[in-house]
Amino acid sequence: MRTRLQAWRLADIAARLGGEVRGDPDFQIRGVGSLASAGPDQAAFLANPKYRPQARQTRAGVLILPPTEAGAADRPCIVTPDPYGYFARLSALLNPPSEVDPGVHPSAVVAPSARIHPSACVGPFVRIGHGAEVGAGTVIEAGTVIGDDVHIGSACRLHANVVVYQGCRLGDRVILHSGAVIGADGFGFAPIEGRWVKIPQVGIVIIGHDVEVGANTTIDRGALDDTVIEEGVKLDNQIQIGHNCRIGAHTAVAGCVGMAGSTIIGKGCRIGGSAMFTGHLEVADGVDISGGTVITKSVREKGVYTALFPFTRHERWLRNAVQLRNLEELAERVAALEAKSERDGKA
Amino acid sequence: MRTRLQAWRLADIAARLGGEVRGDPDFQIRGVGSLASAGPDQAAFLANPKYRPQARQTRAGVLILPPTEAGAADRPCIVTPDPYGYFARLSALLNPPSEVDPGVHPSAVVAPSARIHPSACVGPFVRIGHGAEVGAGTVIEAGTVIGDDVHIGSACRLHANVVVYQGCRLGDRVILHSGAVIGADGFGFAPIEGRWVKIPQVGIVIIGHDVEVGANTTIDRGALDDTVIEEGVKLDNQIQIGHNCRIGAHTAVAGCVGMAGSTIIGKGCRIGGSAMFTGHLEVADGVDISGGTVITKSVREKGVYTALFPFTRHERWLRNAVQLRNLEELAERVAALEAKSERDGKA
Amino acid sequence: MRTRLQAWRLADIAARLGGEVRGDPDFQIRGVGSLASAGPDQAAFLANPKYRPQARQTRAGVLILPPTEAGAADRPCIVTPDPYGYFARLSALLNPPSEVDPGVHPSAVVAPSARIHPSACVGPFVRIGHGAEVGAGTVIEAGTVIGDDVHIGSACRLHANVVVYQGCRLGDRVILHSGAVIGADGFGFAPIEGRWVKIPQVGIVIIGHDVEVGANTTIDRGALDDTVIEEGVKLDNQIQIGHNCRIGAHTAVAGCVGMAGSTIIGKGCRIGGSAMFTGHLEVADGVDISGGTVITKSVREKGVYTALFPFTRHERWLRNAVQLRNLEELAERVAALEAKSERDGKA
Repeated sequence: MRTRLQAWRLADIAARLGGEVRGDPDFQIRGVGSLASAGPDQAAFLANPKYRPQARQTRAGVLILPPTEAGAADRPCIVTPDPYGYFARLSALLNPPSEVDPGVHPSAVVAPSARIHPSACVGPFVRIGHGAEVGAGTVIEAGTVIGDDVHIGSACRLHANVVVYQGCRLGDRVILHSGAVIGADGFGFAPIEGRWVKIPQVGIVIIGHDVEVGANTTIDRGALDDTVIEEGVKLDNQIQIGHNCRIGAHTAVAGCVGMAGSTIIGKGCRIGGSAMFTGHLEVADGVDISGGTVITKSVREKGVYTALFPFTRHERWLRNAVQLRNLEELAERVAALEAKSERDGKA
Repeated sequence: MRTRLQAWRLADIAARLGGEVRGDPDFQIRGVGSLASAGPDQAAFLANPKYRPQARQTRAGVLILPPTEAGAADRPCIVTPDPYGYFARLSALLNPPSEVDPGVHPSAVVAPSARIHPSACVGPFVRIGHGAEVGAGTVIEAGTVIGDDVHIGSACRLHANVVVYQGCRLGDRVILHSGAVIGADGFGFAPIEGRWVKIPQVGIVIIGHDVEVGANTTIDRGALDDTVIEEGVKLDNQIQIGHNCRIGAHTAVAGCVGMAGSTIIGKGCRIGGSAMFTGHLEVADGVDISGGTVITKSVREKGVYTALFPFTRHERWLRNAVQLRNLEELAERVAALEAKSERDGKA
Repeated sequence: MRTRLQAWRLADIAARLGGEVRGDPDFQIRGVGSLASAGPDQAAFLANPKYRPQARQTRAGVLILPPTEAGAADRPCIVTPDPYGYFARLSALLNPPSEVDPGVHPSAVVAPSARIHPSACVGPFVRIGHGAEVGAGTVIEAGTVIGDDVHIGSACRLHANVVVYQGCRLGDRVILHSGAVIGADGFGFAPIEGRWVKIPQVGIVIIGHDVEVGANTTIDRGALDDTVIEEGVKLDNQIQIGHNCRIGAHTAVAGCVGMAGSTIIGKGCRIGGSAMFTGHLEVADGVDISGGTVITKSVREKGVYTALFPFTRHERWLRNAVQLRNLEELAERVAALEAKSERDGKA
């Protein structure tokens, strides 16, 4: 029983988002779908010619197409140079965030010194600490805990059971998914006489505008200076960002990535899932790191970087792995053969 | 101070679970244990002959044995062809889930339009959204948040501080451990002019009967279509399942596994800990993936697949790694030696 | 708007922590900082001579120095043989944990049979189960859920939205960060006729004194025996500890590490980020495991162990990976060349 979405005329859509309507401008849609699943009151898109066969068979009422594909269309369509981008904006138009009533739920525990904008919405069982600030239109869902002196900008959405530790700062339009923990202590201990002595983590986490943080992702507060996530960064689920990391604007990081302390990532990078960074290193702007790759030193130049043991059937892996453990010896044997061949050649 | 368990006679156990009692059928046990730790009022099992020495020394009052091991038993025992499976069922009999009183805790905030079965138990600080449904005998523990229009079957157990986002559907007898997040937004963004534009994630998560989800595991909702976890799937802790994944029935996935979006896993697979899937690929039924392996393309045939750099002492690794970075060159040198050898042979 | 810290005279600091004050003993500081960021009312430290240039330029009012560096100091300083350890203790002195008022928040739901020490602090929306015990001075923050019969020592801090399952035991001065889940069921299932039958997990988790557990880390309860984290262990964020693991005293484990069931780690080990252990193996005392390394069998001797595919530009990786998939064949080709060379030598 999904929510019944509002219907939109194609002409009204084009007036909002641009694009050229071909066919009936009064045709109405209520949602978007994939070529495989969209129904007669939904729009689907075709960006890559290899999906042309699916586009021919789709039940979608409307197609979003690039000019090169528009000729053959047998139904209403919207023509645009970037169908995927158009589709993203159309989907946002047709699927607005669910509306919430402003106000603080009576069960929430809000410190008297906290300032909650009257248009913000604070859900049940939310705890907001002393001196915290929550901006206009921000929604804080059930069970989320906001520490003392936290500043949250406007139009943010903190889903259920998020935790933001004391003093951290979020920009505007930030989305934190459930289970995200912002500002827990970094992993800092000094070894003194066989024991670990905790080093107070006195920095904070600063999150810029338009950042999205996935479910159960953790971003630690700085040890002395701060941990910084610049504007427009997108973090997937289950990511760990150590203390004093800095992630440059508009970088996207896929799930399960780990960054040890003081990893500095440039702007506009794309980090594949489960990549790891060993800390105290820098990655230049615009770098792509493949999934599963461990980065152990700074990457100074743009490009794609990869490290992955290729998978095979287990038996074959076993035999290759034995050789890999002896790779240096194999290289020495090749060098010996070369030396002998050289001597023989001379003889 | 563990809970005092009820005592069971061996004869009553066999009446319930089958198996052949040897020795005193009135002997009573109150629990199960390992060969190393079980006491005189507990049963232990021996499945693998290599543990025979421990079985001789165990303090366990009762042994569960295969017919081949039953001859030498010096105490009451239960003989069965599958001692481990029998042990599992016996342990379930002796350790029933703790009983809970039905009803909704007065602190819970339940939307008036939600339908909670009278035999369900809703704990303190639980939030249940509009139109949600909770089936018979289902237990929802403290701090768990259930979004609007979520459907939860009967006899489920949602441990404390779980989150299920709007619209997701759970079958019967589903177990979700603490910190699990079901239905957060998938990681979907379109790059438009150097920024990431969020693509609304309008699919849901569908979880079949008898699925168990570990602590802090995350399963994202579908982008357009749905993310599906089929019946009997077991997911360990700290797993990330991206949008539009499908996991086939009775597949088991160990901890820390990551699946990028649109990974399709067959039925009856076993996925080792921290394995990763780069997404948009398919794995056939009955495939085993070794722990730590990154799967980068579809696996069409049953079998065991592996990729792992074998660990060694650091110095040896350093020397092997140098050669690995130059492996192509090494192969070229071998090819050159072969060519030269060939020429020399001909000369 | 960070909290205004109390000022301390250098003479008073040395009276507490030792060290020799050079320069004005009445000079006051209010905090610590890095060489790069410390201000005139803060102390910074210099341990490694390579940071001498930064030490010359720092705005820090006070420097903590080893005797070898003390000669050139142009400002008040504290001389000590271990500047980093001193700095850690000084930071702890200047940044005491925020004070909390003892008592149970009226919104908390505490079972009548639970025993909460009067000096403990229980925050809003906390649930404490039957028979649980909370020691002197322990702080339990908002939204944390404590199961039945859990024992928590004195001077612990459980941050917001932690879950401790039934029966688990924590020592004194334990810190659990937000989202940590202690004592969820281990991953134990017996395969019976194509289905997985759950094996009740009847062990508990035992956590020693002075353990710190990072955000969203999970430690599973034992299957039959217990999972044990010995005193002084430090666990970073996003770690998964399977059932029946044991981690030896004063071992430090970095983020994203996974340990499959029955992994036994010695005392004083250091485990790098995202290392994985395949379970049922032992690691000796004092072993270092490099980040990203998968440990597949027991490590009996002290030392540093590593396994990592070295990263390169993608194109180069592709070419090396092809060879790696054929490494056994390459080794056979080298052996053939050696045999031929041997034959030719004899001929």
